Amino acid sequence: MQLSKPRVIIIGGGFGGLTAAKSLKKAIVDIILIDKTNHHLFQPLLYQVATSALSPGDIAIPLRSVLRNQKNVQVIMDEAQKVDLTNKTVYFNDGELQYDYLILSPGSRQSYYGNNNWENYASGLKTLKDALSIREQVLKSFEYAERVYGTPEAKKYLNFVIIGGGPTGVELAGAIAEIARKTMLPDFPILKYNDIKIYLIESHDRLIPSFPPELADYTYKALTKIGVEIITGTRVTDINKNRIITSSQTIETANIIWAAGNEASPLLKSLNVPLDNTGRVIVNNNLTIPGYDNIFIIGDSAHLEINGEILPGLAPVAMQEARYVANIIRNRKNHFKQNPFKYIDKGNLATIGKAKAIALFGNIKFSGFFAWLVWSFVHIMFIINFRNRFRVMFEWFWYYITNQPGARLIVYNKKDNNQN
Amino acid sequence: MQLSKPRVIIIGGGFGGLTAAKSLKKAIVDIILIDKTNHHLFQPLLYQVATSALSPGDIAIPLRSVLRNQKNVQVIMDEAQKVDLTNKTVYFNDGELQYDYLILSPGSRQSYYGNNNWENYASGLKTLKDALSIREQVLKSFEYAERVYGTPEAKKYLNFVIIGGGPTGVELAGAIAEIARKTMLPDFPILKYNDIKIYLIESHDRLIPSFPPELADYTYKALTKIGVEIITGTRVTDINKNRIITSSQTIETANIIWAAGNEASPLLKSLNVPLDNTGRVIVNNNLTIPGYDNIFIIGDSAHLEINGEILPGLAPVAMQEARYVANIIRNRKNHFKQNPFKYIDKGNLATIGKAKAIALFGNIKFSGFFAWLVWSFVHIMFIINFRNRFRVMFEWFWYYITNQPGARLIVYNKKDNNQN
Repeated sequence: MQLSKPRVIIIGGGFGGLTAAKSLKKAIVDIILIDKTNHHLFQPLLYQVATSALSPGDIAIPLRSVLRNQKNVQVIMDEAQKVDLTNKTVYFNDGELQYDYLILSPGSRQSYYGNNNWENYASGLKTLKDALSIREQVLKSFEYAERVYGTPEAKKYLNFVIIGGGPTGVELAGAIAEIARKTMLPDFPILKYNDIKIYLIESHDRLIPSFPPELADYTYKALTKIGVEIITGTRVTDINKNRIITSSQTIETANIIWAAGNEASPLLKSLNVPLDNTGRVIVNNNLTIPGYDNIFIIGDSAHLEINGEILPGLAPVAMQEARYVANIIRNRKNHFKQNPFKYIDKGNLATIGKAKAIALFGNIKFSGFFAWLVWSFVHIMFIINFRNRFRVMFEWFWYYITNQPGARLIVYNKKDNNQN
Repeated sequence: MQLSKPRVIIIGGGFGGLTAAKSLKKAIVDIILIDKTNHHLFQPLLYQVATSALSPGDIAIPLRSVLRNQKNVQVIMDEAQKVDLTNKTVYFNDGELQYDYLILSPGSRQSYYGNNNWENYASGLKTLKDALSIREQVLKSFEYAERVYGTPEAKKYLNFVIIGGGPTGVELAGAIAEIARKTMLPDFPILKYNDIKIYLIESHDRLIPSFPPELADYTYKALTKIGVEIITGTRVTDINKNRIITSSQTIETANIIWAAGNEASPLLKSLNVPLDNTGRVIVNNNLTIPGYDNIFIIGDSAHLEINGEILPGLAPVAMQEARYVANIIRNRKNHFKQNPFKYIDKGNLATIGKAKAIALFGNIKFSGFFAWLVWSFVHIMFIINFRNRFRVMFEWFWYYITNQPGARLIVYNKKDNNQN
C-alpha cells in the first residue's frame, strides 16, 4: 500500500503512547493514537480518586484536547484486539488499520496469579472505573457499618485489606488510614478508632522491595503509626466474597483492594514473539521486537534488561522510551547509528499517609515532610496541563487544611451493586 | 413511646430537608435526616455535570460533612418506603424509626406521563447518576459519529433531542449547543457544524411558560442563534431506541433527554391523603397534612395554592417552607398563632448558552450578559460551602476563557452500555 507519509499507529494513550505522539509532533508522519478510553490518565494519583481526595476530572484529560493543536495526529477511541504482522494491520473492535510503524504501549493490568475469580471480590487500581468502584465501596462500607453497628455483621465493613506492599499498596493503605480516621470517624460518630482495621499484606519479607531497606523501615514505622497493620512474608491463598485467607489467618472484609501484581496486555500475544512470565515482550535493545524494525514496544509492555536489571513499569521509563522511539522514527531517513536505549533514573518517590513520603535519588535517600513536598512538586509538574495542576494543588491544599477530601460521593445507591 | 426530646425525622437531604435540619440547629429536638444518597446535590447546576462543564464533586457535598458540627442531628443513608401514620413510624429499606414530627421532602422525579418504558431511552436529570449517564452518552455519541461518519448510521449520534422547554430544557439545550460546537467540533475535525442538530421540543405554544412572553421571546432568539432548533406546540407521541416521534415528525437520535414533567415521590401515597394530579400532597396552609399537625410536607412534594397560584417546585420555595416548618417545631411549646405560609418570590433566573441569561425579579425583567452575571453570582452564593463555591467559580472562569469544559471523561467504555 502506497502512502504519501508513513503512518504511525500508537496503541495506548498513557504515559508511553501520549509521549510518543507528542514527540512526533514535527515528524513528517501521520499518527493515529488509539485508546480504549477517551482520556489520558495521570495514574500516579489514581489512588487519590479511590480515596475520595481527588475527582476524576482532576487527573484525567481527554486525549483529543491534549493533541488538539497537533496537526499530524488523529485520536480514535477503540480497543485493539490483534496485530497481523504479515499484513501490517491492527484489528480493533470496530475496524482495522494498516501501519508503517507500530508503537505498542497498551499498559498493564492487574494479575491475580491465575486466580481470575478473585477479580470479582478484589478490585485492582488501573483505571478511573477501578478507582470509582473502590471509592464507592469504601464510602458505603462506613454507611453500612453504622447501620449494623454492634452486630457481628459490622466487622467486615470496618476491615480494609490491601494486598501488595509495593508503592501502590503503601500509598493506598496510608490514604485509607488517613481518610478513615480523620474524616470518616467525625462523620460517623457511632464508630470508634479501634473499630477500624487496615491491613497491608505483602509476600516479601519487607515492604517496597524496590526501595532500599532503610526507606522500607521508615515506611513500616510511619504506616504503623497511623494505624495500618502490616503483614509481611505472607501470601493470600484465597479470596471469597467478604473474606480473604492467608496461610496464617482469615480476615472478614468487604473492602479488598488488589495491588499485588501486574501482567501485560493480552494484545501482545498476537505478536508471536517471546514473552516473559508476566506477558511482557522481550525487546531488542532498541525497543523493537525480534525480526521487525518497525514495531516498538514501550512502557509496562516491554521487558528490557540493562546491566542485569529489568526496567520497571514506571511512568518515567515509559516516557523516556517513547522519546527514544520517536527519535528513531523521526530520523529513519538518516543513516545514523542509533544507540541502545538507556534509562536515566531520575529518582523514585512514594507517599505515606498525609504529609510524609520517601524519596530515592541515586544514592540519596530521604523521608518525611520534606520528601512529601518534593513528591507533591514533582507530581504537580508532571501533570499534563495547567488546569489540572491548579485543581490538584487546590484540592491538596484544602485537604491539608481541613482534612475533608473533596469527592466523598456515593453516586450509585445500594441496589447498584453490579456497578463494577 | 416516651422520648426525652422529641424526635424529628426529615426525609430528603435536598434543599428542603437540609434547610429544615439546619434551621433546627438550636431546637431541643433529636433530628434524623435520611436520604437515599450520601450527599446534598446543588440541583440547579446538575445540567452542567451532564454537559461536562462541572464535576460531581463541584456541586455535591456529603450530608454528614454539612451537618458535622450540629450536635442534634444524625444522618442515615437509606430509602423511605412507607409512612404508618397510626404508629408514627417510617419504614425504610433497612429498618424503621418512630417520629414525633415528620418532615417529608423527598423531592420529585421525572414523569413520562404514563409511558414508563420511555425511561429506557430518555434519561431524566434529577440525580448525579442521571447527569453522568447523559454525559457519557453525549461524549460517546461524538466518538461513534466520527467512526461511522459518512454513513446513515452517523445521523442518530449527531442529533440531540431535549424534550421539555421549561428552564431545565432551555439550560440543557443551550449548554449542549455550546459544548457541541465550541468544544467538540475542534476535537473531532471530521465533523462539520451543520452535521450537529439540537432539537428542543415543547408542548406549549412557547418556551418557558413560567416566564413572561418577552423573556421567552429573547430565549427563543438566543437559542436559535447558537443553533438550537425549537419546536413548540408539539408533543412527543412515542420514544423508541434511537428514535423520537411527534405528531409532525420522526427524529433519529441516540441522545434523548427528558426535561418535560415531574411527578412526586411515590412515598407520599402511603399517607392516604388527597394528592394532586402529579402526586403532590394538597397541604394545609401551614404545610401540615389534613388531620395531622405533626406531619409536614415541603418542597416539590407539596401542593399549596396561594392567591390562585400553586407554588412551583423551585429551590427557594423549598427553603422558605423549610424554615417556616422549623419555626413551628421550635415554637411548639409557645402558644403563639402561626400565620399561614407565605412565599416571598425573590426572583427567577435561567441561563441560555454560555454567557446569556434571563432574569425576573417581580416586575423587573432583563436579559443578556448582565443577567448571566447575576445568575452566576446568585448560584455561587447559594452553594452551600466555600470549597465548592471556589471550585465552581474556577471551572466557570476556565471554561469561559478556554471553551474547554473540565469533565469530558468517558469512564465506562463501550461494553458497559447498561451503566444506566
